[in-house]
Amino acid sequence: MSIGTQDFIVPAGKTIRLKDYDSNWLPKWAKQEKYKKTLKQQAIDLLEENRQKLVSEQELLWASDSYAMLIILQGMDAAGKDSTIRHVMSGVNPQGCRVTSFKTPSTEELKHDFLWRHIKALPERGSIGIFNRSYYEDVLIVKVRPEVFAKQKLPPIQDETLFWEQRYEDITLLERHLVRGGTLVLKFYLHISKKEQKKRLLKRLEDPDKAWKFSITDLEERSKWSEYEKAYEEMLNKTSTKWAPWYVIPADRKWVAHALIAEVIASEIEKLDLTYPVLNKTQKEELTKAKAELEKD
Amino acid sequence: MSIGTQDFIVPAGKTIRLKDYDSNWLPKWAKQEKYKKTLKQQAIDLLEENRQKLVSEQELLWASDSYAMLIILQGMDAAGKDSTIRHVMSGVNPQGCRVTSFKTPSTEELKHDFLWRHIKALPERGSIGIFNRSYYEDVLIVKVRPEVFAKQKLPPIQDETLFWEQRYEDITLLERHLVRGGTLVLKFYLHISKKEQKKRLLKRLEDPDKAWKFSITDLEERSKWSEYEKAYEEMLNKTSTKWAPWYVIPADRKWVAHALIAEVIASEIEKLDLTYPVLNKTQKEELTKAKAELEKD
Repeated sequence: MSIGTQDFIVPAGKTIRLKDYDSNWLPKWAKQEKYKKTLKQQAIDLLEENRQKLVSEQELLWASDSYAMLIILQGMDAAGKDSTIRHVMSGVNPQGCRVTSFKTPSTEELKHDFLWRHIKALPERGSIGIFNRSYYEDVLIVKVRPEVFAKQKLPPIQDETLFWEQRYEDITLLERHLVRGGTLVLKFYLHISKKEQKKRLLKRLEDPDKAWKFSITDLEERSKWSEYEKAYEEMLNKTSTKWAPWYVIPADRKWVAHALIAEVIASEIEKLDLTYPVLNKTQKEELTKAKAELEKD
Repeated sequence: MSIGTQDFIVPAGKTIRLKDYDSNWLPKWAKQEKYKKTLKQQAIDLLEENRQKLVSEQELLWASDSYAMLIILQGMDAAGKDSTIRHVMSGVNPQGCRVTSFKTPSTEELKHDFLWRHIKALPERGSIGIFNRSYYEDVLIVKVRPEVFAKQKLPPIQDETLFWEQRYEDITLLERHLVRGGTLVLKFYLHISKKEQKKRLLKRLEDPDKAWKFSITDLEERSKWSEYEKAYEEMLNKTSTKWAPWYVIPADRKWVAHALIAEVIASEIEKLDLTYPVLNKTQKEELTKAKAELEKD
């Protein structure tokens, strides 16, 4: 799967439409039926290769104790956020990787600004943090559902457009601050079609081991598909920046999504060009002394 | 490796001596040189088998949303705590598994009782928490090193023996509280010999990718080996309970330690006999309605 993941970036300052992104994307050469099997195998191999890269890069990240990595996953229900975490990240050492799933905020969290609970969960130097949903929900569900918005109990708003503009700005500036401090920020929007969501929700309903995961609110959310799509589009356009661009990941095929995301993560962390700490002269001397001491112990 | 992991439990209420536990343990049948290779392969297979069990049990733990699992790892420097986490837990889904490494407490943490920072990091229902070191350090390093003890700024102590007895009691009662609330508490003491530690520290010093991990305090700690051994022994004797027993894991051979720990974790979680949530009549009706609605969508 020799593809430039660059193609999936939302260019900073440009306005994109989601309908111009194919949720069922395949590389051009693989569109013919006879190549699909080859492609799937290649995607699986690429995922495995990148998972292994990630494992060794994670060691370096930990050793460097200087950089951190924040991975943000957003997408409609059943877009594959959970399964991406399971497939892409299961190889990594759990010491140094922390997943936070942001659900309905608690009473305490609602008493703070919308970034507060997310900031508390940011990854520390040397480690990888994964946000399964994030502060982006504060410009998605909070924008689409007035009853969720009401719970935030904000001071009166004069100009609604300005209000949302400021939220987008607050988010991008938080991310710039993080990047400046050494946190790599990678943001993935898992792009599925309404048809694919239907298929997945039905599958969930039919599998006795998965039916319990189904909630009636999944259908309510689905009924607002076009409002969500609009909110996602605006989010992508307003918050894809040079320091923390959005990737729109074609996710109708899970194996395509997993391979692409693993490729982005592995190649971005490789770009940091991390190495194990090099000891200075004094440290080396100390080690020689320690070694002598140990040997005669 | 057909062994009863029961043999490694410190029996509640009994007094054990660490020297009666062989850090270089092998099952009897495998003590002859010609069987060692077979055994190692078996241990590796067992580890893999248990890792896979653990992955599927973790899904159930998550689904049950009722139980949690707390794994505590203790042991001298270089006993293999980090490598145990890497080898035993790398297969699990990082969503639902959180490792906390307890280092020197912060100023804020020192302002609270010794359990406070550990309680904050306890695993939530449905998930696995791993403590790399724990509140047990408060009856180990804190007991062995007066300068560390002094930092805890405790009110004047009348009776030192009573003071430590109370710490052991506070710990066991916290654990009983956790177990009563649905948290499985598994505690592993990684048992290595002083000779094996020497070998590992020397190896660390000689590997350019690992030398940076070496700290001169490792040698200071090593010089207090027998004080630590005594403190560990007392800890094991005072805090191995029916509800949360200690396992003394022979750890001179890392592959033995990994296989044993994976076996304990997988079998203990299996004993919970978890199943996917079963839907009641109303929930089933709701799903049927949802399905009909989705199908015509």
